[in-house]
Amino acid sequence: MPQKQEVADWFRTLQKETCTALENEDGKGKFQEDSWERPGGGGGHTRVLTAGHVIEKGGVNFSAVHGELPDNIKNALGVSGKNFYATGISIVIHPHNPHVPIIHMNTRYFEIDDGTYWFGGGIDLTPHYVVPEQAAHFHNNIKEVCDRHDTSYYPKHKKTADDYFFIKHRNETRGVGGIFFDRMTESKEKNKREIFNYVKDVGKLFAPVYTQYMAHNKNKPYSEPEKKWQLLRRGRYVEFNLVYDKGTKFGLHTSGRIESILMSLPKMAAWEYDFTPEPGSAEEKTVQYLRKDVDWLNCT
Amino acid sequence: MPQKQEVADWFRTLQKETCTALENEDGKGKFQEDSWERPGGGGGHTRVLTAGHVIEKGGVNFSAVHGELPDNIKNALGVSGKNFYATGISIVIHPHNPHVPIIHMNTRYFEIDDGTYWFGGGIDLTPHYVVPEQAAHFHNNIKEVCDRHDTSYYPKHKKTADDYFFIKHRNETRGVGGIFFDRMTESKEKNKREIFNYVKDVGKLFAPVYTQYMAHNKNKPYSEPEKKWQLLRRGRYVEFNLVYDKGTKFGLHTSGRIESILMSLPKMAAWEYDFTPEPGSAEEKTVQYLRKDVDWLNCT
Repeated sequence: MPQKQEVADWFRTLQKETCTALENEDGKGKFQEDSWERPGGGGGHTRVLTAGHVIEKGGVNFSAVHGELPDNIKNALGVSGKNFYATGISIVIHPHNPHVPIIHMNTRYFEIDDGTYWFGGGIDLTPHYVVPEQAAHFHNNIKEVCDRHDTSYYPKHKKTADDYFFIKHRNETRGVGGIFFDRMTESKEKNKREIFNYVKDVGKLFAPVYTQYMAHNKNKPYSEPEKKWQLLRRGRYVEFNLVYDKGTKFGLHTSGRIESILMSLPKMAAWEYDFTPEPGSAEEKTVQYLRKDVDWLNCT
Repeated sequence: MPQKQEVADWFRTLQKETCTALENEDGKGKFQEDSWERPGGGGGHTRVLTAGHVIEKGGVNFSAVHGELPDNIKNALGVSGKNFYATGISIVIHPHNPHVPIIHMNTRYFEIDDGTYWFGGGIDLTPHYVVPEQAAHFHNNIKEVCDRHDTSYYPKHKKTADDYFFIKHRNETRGVGGIFFDRMTESKEKNKREIFNYVKDVGKLFAPVYTQYMAHNKNKPYSEPEKKWQLLRRGRYVEFNLVYDKGTKFGLHTSGRIESILMSLPKMAAWEYDFTPEPGSAEEKTVQYLRKDVDWLNCT
């Protein structure tokens, strides 16, 4: 059965391979690595690419931290045990071109010295302009990965993503969703190795899928109003991350490394009072798509 | 003793007078008014000025809402009673020129049908570049208003502002502070009329002080790096408002009118990974000033 070191090593390797794939497709930008230590134990390697050809600001963060489990976290998680170990990889990419979508991927592993452990993760797409064909492609690729492991995964984890990536105060989803799962641990059906293999496959899906969206859209022309719309959509992304995202909130309230946590925020975002898209416009159509329970597999 | 209608009428008048003063100093922008109703009772008048000569985006919001008190709010506030009434005015101004500071002012009144009531409010300044003379002027003007009512107010309410307008995850204050107070109700020392008079004087301080900062700084030349710095400081403003501000959080989680709540966000904001100002620069000096417990009265 995989031990924490194997999991961490695999996440670190995924970070390197993902950065290489993104750099290759970008053609100009290079990731800079910052290594940092956590005062309580462990640390991380934050990789950031800015001012690329396709990517305006992208972060691929690896961390492996450990130490004493604070009481408030124990209570929040409903666990006992004295020490914890947590490792993960977290990616957010903000492109220049409004026709290239924003993407987020995260896989993580958490264990406590009482023997409890779980895996979590997810991948979701936030197009500035929703293109049904792209959303269908994204969800079908995810489903294919899920089905290889368990046909119950896609419907279950797609629904969890719909509920999680939801901006309640705007009554809209962050984007076209994807999958999200947490606290996956061994059961009668699946052992630890099998769950880890699922997590790995989700992680490996990121680069080939996203570089395809970069390649396909990076040279599409765009107008000033489309750029402005992108900034407004990024404003919503900021709202989601600062108001709802559990990882961000957890990091901000437990004195995590702030720059690594907030690397998810775009280089620039905008807010306009009571902006309403023109009736029948591409912007209005996008907003109409931003709801839960869309059957993206068959939306074209 | 002032009844709720008198308080609400005064806030509404203050909104009008404040907007006129801001328009006069701006010389170009005009406030647009949106009136809205709250499904549970009451409503508000949101006034927004965009693309002025000095003001890029400014909001002056009046509301007077009432209705049944939800159980979770009852618990959060530690009150009983069935129905509430709340009225207030809330102002945030984001200027074009990075040498003109951002400002925020809010005065509010809350009452419950069991006879409980309180006033709250505050005014605080967020310069993109801290200028000690301006901060001293701001605090001395506030102190003068406070002292007219009670010499204990300024030190007490200045400290509350230092603690409240603090971005914990950045370990910096939002700006140079000001005053903040909440739950002021009648006591042996002060009756309701006297507290209301204090709140009114705080409200009336806003326009003359801020229009002075507009006039004094609006024509100062600024560079691209200074404009970029302004966008980064606005990013911090967004972080404070979405992560910590009680009014914003309360509004987002109780289905308030979102556009009126988030009018406080700037037209545009930026985030740069691990940005560090040049040693000895004006930007670095500003960051050094952003801490609690600065004696702004005597800082020049």
